[in-house]
Amino acid sequence: MQHRQTTNTRRNVNDYLSRKAKEISPYAAGAQPKAGGVIKLNTNENPYPPSPEAMRAMADFNAAALRLYPRPDGGVFKTAAANVHNLPESYVFCGNGSDEVLGFAFDAFFDGNIMFPDITYSFYPVWADLFGISYNLLPLGDDFTIPVDRLKADGIVLANPNAPTGIALTLSEVEQVLKQNENAVVIVDEAYAAFGAQSAAPLVNDYPNLLVVNTLSKSHSLAGLRAGYALGQPHLIGGLERIKDSFNSYPVDSVAQAVAAAALNDTAYTNETAARIVATRERTTAALAKLGFNVLPSKTNFVFATRKKIPAADLQAYLETQNIYVRRWDKPRISEYLRISIGTDAQMDALIDAIKSFISSPV
Amino acid sequence: MQHRQTTNTRRNVNDYLSRKAKEISPYAAGAQPKAGGVIKLNTNENPYPPSPEAMRAMADFNAAALRLYPRPDGGVFKTAAANVHNLPESYVFCGNGSDEVLGFAFDAFFDGNIMFPDITYSFYPVWADLFGISYNLLPLGDDFTIPVDRLKADGIVLANPNAPTGIALTLSEVEQVLKQNENAVVIVDEAYAAFGAQSAAPLVNDYPNLLVVNTLSKSHSLAGLRAGYALGQPHLIGGLERIKDSFNSYPVDSVAQAVAAAALNDTAYTNETAARIVATRERTTAALAKLGFNVLPSKTNFVFATRKKIPAADLQAYLETQNIYVRRWDKPRISEYLRISIGTDAQMDALIDAIKSFISSPV
Repeated sequence: MQHRQTTNTRRNVNDYLSRKAKEISPYAAGAQPKAGGVIKLNTNENPYPPSPEAMRAMADFNAAALRLYPRPDGGVFKTAAANVHNLPESYVFCGNGSDEVLGFAFDAFFDGNIMFPDITYSFYPVWADLFGISYNLLPLGDDFTIPVDRLKADGIVLANPNAPTGIALTLSEVEQVLKQNENAVVIVDEAYAAFGAQSAAPLVNDYPNLLVVNTLSKSHSLAGLRAGYALGQPHLIGGLERIKDSFNSYPVDSVAQAVAAAALNDTAYTNETAARIVATRERTTAALAKLGFNVLPSKTNFVFATRKKIPAADLQAYLETQNIYVRRWDKPRISEYLRISIGTDAQMDALIDAIKSFISSPV
Repeated sequence: MQHRQTTNTRRNVNDYLSRKAKEISPYAAGAQPKAGGVIKLNTNENPYPPSPEAMRAMADFNAAALRLYPRPDGGVFKTAAANVHNLPESYVFCGNGSDEVLGFAFDAFFDGNIMFPDITYSFYPVWADLFGISYNLLPLGDDFTIPVDRLKADGIVLANPNAPTGIALTLSEVEQVLKQNENAVVIVDEAYAAFGAQSAAPLVNDYPNLLVVNTLSKSHSLAGLRAGYALGQPHLIGGLERIKDSFNSYPVDSVAQAVAAAALNDTAYTNETAARIVATRERTTAALAKLGFNVLPSKTNFVFATRKKIPAADLQAYLETQNIYVRRWDKPRISEYLRISIGTDAQMDALIDAIKSFISSPV
């Protein structure tokens, strides 16, 4: 009689995964503590609520309309992004957060031999691995700036301002990268540009190799809505659409389309809250400097800071005991830095007080 | 003096696309006519509004919370799906519509040599191409049923009920597929199961190779929200999470999490509206049969029908002139069929009247 194994013991359960699923190292997002009452300075969320216009669009949304599929191209969200940047709609692609847009862009424009800095948004190497795209890392200089002259490859990805350093390139430096890579697509990820960098969006008309990627997560206080978009000439937008239509026909839901459009159109509110965050950032930078920190020059809604004689991991752990969350990467060159999102003035005062307590406490 | 070409004329703009973006044939979703007043029977949307509980969750949603990132795992949506299916949360994966969930599943479980029917959801071959997965098509029988005995490969994808035929397998047939492929993951796509098929969800505990994929688009009238989920043992859910975390950390926005949870929990409303649609389907099937149509036996919210001597393309075109949209594929064996979504009784009466007019009109 033949022995029949049960399905449950037949093999190691991990054998059911594809090679890719077994081998890839996923991106690790910042912690989302479930408890209330924390000061959450670890994922660069905006401390202010979304625009009153966005709140109104949410309240006015007709939920009965959800029975129908959304516009596959982002609908009013796409229209608003085009209007804000004074570009035709054919220059805009909308996605389920800028992470999805960036993922599609890697797949749509890169076959291999791409380049990005060694210290930058740590999702870039993950997308490259996910889509089987070879890449070279360009080491940042000692001052954490990008050696722009050396940025040459078959595809370029730039966060501007860079993360987690917060340092921005000038528009002429971005233009240099576009010119020295005119046969390659250059993705400029402007997740943080609203807080002080020069956007490359006005260059889109002149450079057929430029894709500017934006998100409403930080500048528009809509991290929970998942709304991102790209700006580029129609051949690049068409490439993104081909990948999108091979993955998910309707990536942006109807609510997100309506709320994102309202938020984008309220440029006054966005500018006002960004200005408040910039003011708080400068105050925080001065306070940290006074406590002996070296703070990189940030054009974002976070600061990247280190202090001699204080192990960053210890300070991070202490801050968590005070219900203050900041982020740290255990990676070469930056493991002694903390990335601190800019919250309200009151939150940053609490952070500074906690750091003072840590510094002055007997070991 | 060296001649310098402008970037705009340097090369063909399509050269900026990756090989994949150039070569892939994207999925084509049903048309979304912009004009109002149409009878839209072309994308299997539910004619009834979402559950009152879902509408209330939408109205009660605190838009100020959108400044924070959503729960990366779907939060209350995941909890509700687990409760509805009486499974632990570790058996549930939530995504931005079941299309995203299915795309992740192809990438997470398949390396190649997979199999699905030749006539089925036409997104399956697109995902296979997108992720570089080789596949074999299993021809349906003359009656459009799946020859279950021949469904053997290194990965299986089954829509149950199948689309666009509407024909369902029994649970014991699904179990046969699981048993004869115990070393391969079997994805059972149950987008339409609420309208009459037996769900394979109760088999999840017994089969480590089973992934059941579901969507709230049809059964819960939430196509515009983009909410889908998968059920499987934790090693499969973990594989999906590894791919998700390598693509987009937060695919389901906070609004979708809240509204999907409320809709899932209102099982009474879902069952009631599904029963109404089934009754309308049976009425419609009888009326079409009376007009000489051959209607395949449907367990879904659509019917797949053909009639001798009436070219399906002509009938479809005529219906559009009457503002009635149905769907047709110009593919072997099914080009003379129309797929007609089940709307309200009044909408289906209008459809039947229009078909009568077409049949009786002089050519």
